[in-house]
Amino acid sequence: MKVEIRLAGTGGQGVILASVVLAEAAAVHEGRQVVQSQSYGPEARGGASKADVIISNEPILFPKCRKLDVLLCLSQQAADKYSADLKQRGTAIVDSFHVREHVRPSAVRLPLSETARRVLGRELFTNIVALGALARVTGVVKLESLKQAIAGRVPPATVEANLQALNAGWDVARRG
Amino acid sequence: MKVEIRLAGTGGQGVILASVVLAEAAAVHEGRQVVQSQSYGPEARGGASKADVIISNEPILFPKCRKLDVLLCLSQQAADKYSADLKQRGTAIVDSFHVREHVRPSAVRLPLSETARRVLGRELFTNIVALGALARVTGVVKLESLKQAIAGRVPPATVEANLQALNAGWDVARRG
Repeated sequence: MKVEIRLAGTGGQGVILASVVLAEAAAVHEGRQVVQSQSYGPEARGGASKADVIISNEPILFPKCRKLDVLLCLSQQAADKYSADLKQRGTAIVDSFHVREHVRPSAVRLPLSETARRVLGRELFTNIVALGALARVTGVVKLESLKQAIAGRVPPATVEANLQALNAGWDVARRG
Repeated sequence: MKVEIRLAGTGGQGVILASVVLAEAAAVHEGRQVVQSQSYGPEARGGASKADVIISNEPILFPKCRKLDVLLCLSQQAADKYSADLKQRGTAIVDSFHVREHVRPSAVRLPLSETARRVLGRELFTNIVALGALARVTGVVKLESLKQAIAGRVPPATVEANLQALNAGWDVARRG
């Protein structure tokens, strides 16, 4: 089984770090085959940011996302730009504050950035809140694997706050 | 013109961060087309770490490195594992402390980790020292673009130390 996931937002929202954490959770802590990548085209100067993760039980022959199973959008621009890449029955997860309109009525709308502000006091943690939510909504990785990956990837002084963000995201996705 | 670059070492040496900085330097600050990626196979648990960057003036159709133009090795294991992927006339850059044997007599041996220890007091900065050296030896990106990318990517409190590391790497590669 192969899952193609895109995390998208604006520069500074930390989608690349989140995608590296997701990739390492699946690869290092669950033994899956994973490719994590960013493609930068002429739009790279525009401040948009996206990162892709492919998780599979088999070797991944074509390393680029084609049709997404999961699309996380932290900005309206990301939702507008990438929703067409989502499979018909794919899962869209959108931040309910930054994404006001979404083409998919089935999109899971969650207060990710609001949760980051409320629980951590800073929107900076939205990316990790989003990972917790994504894990619960999709089941693609275990929460425990994400915890271990975070501990190995974020600056030591911020591990505790990031784990708090992850748990808050898991909790807020209860209804997903 | 397309350049395929691999940064390789052990977990904790920061090759993924370095590759994201390199990718953003080329894409955001020089307007090139770039794909940055990590593939994690069954060896992901072994502590090895590698990250690939493809920089091109044209759209990149096949997003995976095939034959490397540039290979940076920060560990002996990385040198042993990836040297066969380097083109016949490709450029190998190796850390002279951690890589004691290298199959390519033409490899550029530089005291990257020693420079990080000497100038910054911590080997943690080896990845950014290496970027400065790589820029000078290969000319694939401008030093100025790397400076801008670093400022946008590392924690604010560490920008100055990282820029110092970058410059130290540039200086140490004089002879490259």
